[in-house]
Amino acid sequence: MLIDTIKQENSIGLVKTQYLTLDTGLVLESGERLNPVTLAYETYGTLDKDRSNAILVLHALSGDAHAAGFHEGEKTPGWWNNMIGPCKAFDTNKYFMICSNVIGGCRGSTGPPSINPQTNMPYGIDFPAITIKDMVNAQSYLVQYLGIDKLLAVAGGSMGGMQALQWTASFPERVSAAIIIAATARHSPQQIAFNEVGRQAIMADSDWNNGNYYSEGVSPVRGLSLARMIGHITYMSDMSMSEKFGRRIKDVKQEARFNPDFEVEGYLQHKGDNFVKRFDANSYLYITKALDRFDLSNGSGLNEVLGQAQDLKLLVMAFTSDWLYPAYQSKDIVKTCKLTNIDVTYCELNSTYGHDAFLLEVEGESNLITHFLRRVSNG
Amino acid sequence: MLIDTIKQENSIGLVKTQYLTLDTGLVLESGERLNPVTLAYETYGTLDKDRSNAILVLHALSGDAHAAGFHEGEKTPGWWNNMIGPCKAFDTNKYFMICSNVIGGCRGSTGPPSINPQTNMPYGIDFPAITIKDMVNAQSYLVQYLGIDKLLAVAGGSMGGMQALQWTASFPERVSAAIIIAATARHSPQQIAFNEVGRQAIMADSDWNNGNYYSEGVSPVRGLSLARMIGHITYMSDMSMSEKFGRRIKDVKQEARFNPDFEVEGYLQHKGDNFVKRFDANSYLYITKALDRFDLSNGSGLNEVLGQAQDLKLLVMAFTSDWLYPAYQSKDIVKTCKLTNIDVTYCELNSTYGHDAFLLEVEGESNLITHFLRRVSNG
Repeated sequence: MLIDTIKQENSIGLVKTQYLTLDTGLVLESGERLNPVTLAYETYGTLDKDRSNAILVLHALSGDAHAAGFHEGEKTPGWWNNMIGPCKAFDTNKYFMICSNVIGGCRGSTGPPSINPQTNMPYGIDFPAITIKDMVNAQSYLVQYLGIDKLLAVAGGSMGGMQALQWTASFPERVSAAIIIAATARHSPQQIAFNEVGRQAIMADSDWNNGNYYSEGVSPVRGLSLARMIGHITYMSDMSMSEKFGRRIKDVKQEARFNPDFEVEGYLQHKGDNFVKRFDANSYLYITKALDRFDLSNGSGLNEVLGQAQDLKLLVMAFTSDWLYPAYQSKDIVKTCKLTNIDVTYCELNSTYGHDAFLLEVEGESNLITHFLRRVSNG
Repeated sequence: MLIDTIKQENSIGLVKTQYLTLDTGLVLESGERLNPVTLAYETYGTLDKDRSNAILVLHALSGDAHAAGFHEGEKTPGWWNNMIGPCKAFDTNKYFMICSNVIGGCRGSTGPPSINPQTNMPYGIDFPAITIKDMVNAQSYLVQYLGIDKLLAVAGGSMGGMQALQWTASFPERVSAAIIIAATARHSPQQIAFNEVGRQAIMADSDWNNGNYYSEGVSPVRGLSLARMIGHITYMSDMSMSEKFGRRIKDVKQEARFNPDFEVEGYLQHKGDNFVKRFDANSYLYITKALDRFDLSNGSGLNEVLGQAQDLKLLVMAFTSDWLYPAYQSKDIVKTCKLTNIDVTYCELNSTYGHDAFLLEVEGESNLITHFLRRVSNG
């Protein structure tokens, strides 16, 4: 009862995922037309009369449309629930929040597990290659459908931050501000390398079967779990792992020779096992490729793009212990903004959480975002 | 002709691996007796009359007894050839160098691929668990066999450095000095985590077959290759990867959707593919477990051990960009030495090479080692 009351006070409560199907499909950056295209999305708060208070939140690699509140019967709230709600950083008393699952994903939007109308079978790896730009294009139709000409802001961490940056490049006239957290204008070789090992782990799993596993009653769970385990190491920091696990030994009798004996090993396996229950291996391949191919760095014309968006305001954040998306990558974005006279605020927050900090450093992020959005709202 | 001349001048030339079988086997830390035990080893230089110029070099995870010179018919020299030879850091005109493959390995010393005398089949995962201490115990018999009561020094990088540290703890009276490079007194959760993902990759490969693959005509090449790819990312640095690869696209037409398109991807696959030709998957499991379970940190009594070795001299080195064995781990060793009045020299070398620096920063290492060994030789 008490918990329910607290939920009501601090959370937006029960929410439902909605679906939009784009009638004419979507022409992708590759030139291919994807049709039909469905977008899973959620909204929180109320769109004001002049439709000027909408903020699009963008999710990371493994995220989805369910950013805040609770789904009926579920105990875990949306992935950014501590940032979105009444009196939170993204204050639903003030702002109309939107979040959609990316295309290529597997959480309600059209992706590799969706039915290919030409075969009436799941696409698998016949799904066309998608890019961050394609994801953002799809979102632009959703925003249009919701009757919003110009977003107050786009915001996200990690791949969400990369989408936010792409929004400023693709639709500079349709967005007033962007909040870009723990992100980059392009993947480094190290970032590509970690993704590639994850992809290789999936494709090395004989149950992957060249992407055709949907009708087989199996799926490449070992490969996908491995990819997630690798990911989790990169999301944490040396220090946060030491703080969380130390060298504590798992409190179970070891039956087989190479069963985990340290807590950190059991934790990673648990994370991997859970992930395969909710994520599709082919989507993992497609989305990580989109990340790796993303390049909005200076040499690729970001400065020219931003030069056409002089009213844009940017808030860029990085975290001291984030070694997967190191602060220098955020500073590169800031540098490009400065050189093109874009209004940019940069903050490097102290944190031991590594890349995960964008989900965990709620207080530091909230302070910055609250003030930034107030400034943006006041024009 | 010119190349051959240069080889003769700078290298010790042709060398051969030798083998020592310990008659009574070896009692392991686990209490089990391993019998027979064969050690593959090489020596370079000449043992002096009073047998006081011997230095034992210790290899890293994937290394072997072949530390320097060339094997007949091979173009690639030993793994530390640029450090061992006439007028090099480990000057074979002055010192008698010894290097042996660790037990548990697969490069000539007894390990999981060796024949189990009780079954006349390869051990596989019936091979007993081994530790860094066991590796060092086995080496101590080799040193004894060579007629050396006291080593002038033990030296190694990475796991080699951990063995060198174990030597000072196990046999303080049998070693005058230790050179410990890019190592640690114990693995952190992050180091354990990377090793664990590598192990999981091997064990997830259906060709691993619970370690029984030797007679099947297959081996878990996909899993072992993945483990090596993960390893390679951790051996390099963000900067060294950027310098080496940038975002260059591979110069081949892509046939399949998820083939590598960045050079860094092809490089990692190449490294993985090569590794499986020379390394055994079960050995990888055993040796990484030995690494993870190693703990000579202060709380485990290193200070007490070192307190009994007051004549010992230590040279400890770390590299600025090494994030797998970060400098703070070397400093922890140095701190323990200082607190126990051990003669210790510490140097953090500038390098962009990451952990690989211990194999690549030849000039910086050579300067320090040359002077250190001169001081040790002079008592």
